[in-house]
Amino acid sequence: MAVYTDLADTDLEAFLADYDIGAPLSFKGIAEGVENSNFLLETQNGRYILTIYERRVRADDLPFFLSLMQWLPAAGYPSAAPIADRGGQLLRYARGKPAALIAFLPGLAVRRPTVAHCREAGEGLGWLHTASRDFPGRRENDLGQPAWEPMARRLTDAADGLKPGLAASILGDAAHLAGRWPVDLPQGIVHADYFPDNVFFRDGKFAGTIDFYFAAWDALAYDIGVALNAWCFEPDGSFNITAARAFIDGYERRRQLSAAEKLALPVLAHGAALRFFLTRLNDWGSIPAGALVAPKDPLEYERKLAVHRAGLALFETPR
Amino acid sequence: MAVYTDLADTDLEAFLADYDIGAPLSFKGIAEGVENSNFLLETQNGRYILTIYERRVRADDLPFFLSLMQWLPAAGYPSAAPIADRGGQLLRYARGKPAALIAFLPGLAVRRPTVAHCREAGEGLGWLHTASRDFPGRRENDLGQPAWEPMARRLTDAADGLKPGLAASILGDAAHLAGRWPVDLPQGIVHADYFPDNVFFRDGKFAGTIDFYFAAWDALAYDIGVALNAWCFEPDGSFNITAARAFIDGYERRRQLSAAEKLALPVLAHGAALRFFLTRLNDWGSIPAGALVAPKDPLEYERKLAVHRAGLALFETPR
Repeated sequence: MAVYTDLADTDLEAFLADYDIGAPLSFKGIAEGVENSNFLLETQNGRYILTIYERRVRADDLPFFLSLMQWLPAAGYPSAAPIADRGGQLLRYARGKPAALIAFLPGLAVRRPTVAHCREAGEGLGWLHTASRDFPGRRENDLGQPAWEPMARRLTDAADGLKPGLAASILGDAAHLAGRWPVDLPQGIVHADYFPDNVFFRDGKFAGTIDFYFAAWDALAYDIGVALNAWCFEPDGSFNITAARAFIDGYERRRQLSAAEKLALPVLAHGAALRFFLTRLNDWGSIPAGALVAPKDPLEYERKLAVHRAGLALFETPR
Repeated sequence: MAVYTDLADTDLEAFLADYDIGAPLSFKGIAEGVENSNFLLETQNGRYILTIYERRVRADDLPFFLSLMQWLPAAGYPSAAPIADRGGQLLRYARGKPAALIAFLPGLAVRRPTVAHCREAGEGLGWLHTASRDFPGRRENDLGQPAWEPMARRLTDAADGLKPGLAASILGDAAHLAGRWPVDLPQGIVHADYFPDNVFFRDGKFAGTIDFYFAAWDALAYDIGVALNAWCFEPDGSFNITAARAFIDGYERRRQLSAAEKLALPVLAHGAALRFFLTRLNDWGSIPAGALVAPKDPLEYERKLAVHRAGLALFETPR
């Protein structure tokens, strides 16, 4: 939860002067999105999210994110469209920081997904991959597999500080993954942060996806790897194979996985666990004082890494 | 800004089970209210604020606050009504803490009020005092004048830590006010926290008041004293007499002040400045780690106290 940049009524008025969305009726900072400041705005025309982009989101990447967010609803996908100003611009500035106005997407995130939620969420992800198929934009996944070994090397002190011997384990993960990382899987636009707090439901049905600020070009099945970690572990750290199969089953309602993709899922999920462990470890030591944000515990992902090291049996393997 | 208590979808579901307001469509923690956790909830029936009462708000006082909040809209005043559950209860519990569901009140708070805003806000306060005239509830103002000297004594170390010599100044303020505090002014329900962030506007007109969690029985004109400090000082610390007169003028559109009340305003405003200085000083040293809230600078009110010590000339005094 975060509101890093305080926006006064006069800042809002200045920001809205270039939009044709009517006068503001209410405006509230919301505790959503760890990376950015978000405000819920109601005007005579409807409801919007005003996002101010803070640290980690690179301004150079914003045109890619915003054009993807514009593309998806136009392709029929339930996600929030950015609103252009009178000059057709999606990317603006508020208090000197990059900012955008986004349509409000209703829906409820779930905290502890059931198997039924996993199936729905899987379908939402498969749908995302088909809806974005012809999107022309490209962005390299700067948090993809090639980044992990250098990150792990940079964070050895932090890792051992968290738990003695952990640096060696994660360097081992990075080396193991580098040797087995699949390179010929179907590529496309991945969400890369498809966690339960970014997926909305209504009456138990998938209702939409938010927060595309890690989206990139990568193996589509990598997104499933990210999601298996985020959706299919129990609070006690155990992997819920039923939830995972439901997620994959839901996904395949929209997009069929190849045999190579299915076979690669355990290593993709292992890699995704390393990616989130590394960024959480990095954030753990670097949240600035006064940021009003609680960093996420990297040890949650360390426990997932341990599960992956032991091997994830997703499908019965032919003998 | 604050969300102290995290509320998951399942907590929300449990909470809403006893209400007849339809299924939830969206639910977001909002950065509003320093004392409580607030969530904006949309259901099929409309929009609501779900408030979880945290530290400082005493559970014993909640029935008074909630019945006042129920009284005011019924008396035609634009404020947010609490919603009763099926059993007629306004006060409920969520995750073991007292909680209530409140109707959503649209409107925008202003950060830097103009003279025109002050006039409107004054009218809103006068209206509040007439709308609450027959409200039968009573709550002693535990942060009223009798509380200041003991608080100042308890905080001498903190005061001198903030600025050497400050403890003596504020003990002097408390003694000075004790000797001159008016005791025969008209009493009634005061908001006691009528700051710009608790007052909503629409198209520059007063649109409503929120946050009644300091309301109490006290001299009505004391509320004007609180408001003069909160609305009529410039960022450079100077007192804006034009804004103050506009506030009082707006107030008198709804309720005429007696000569004794007008004469008492400088000492009431001095007292109100001491009250906010003392509670901010107290909070300054006591915000728990991880509270995700920025304490308010007590020095802002120390500067206001200095203005009051020099004497506030609100009206021309007869020679």
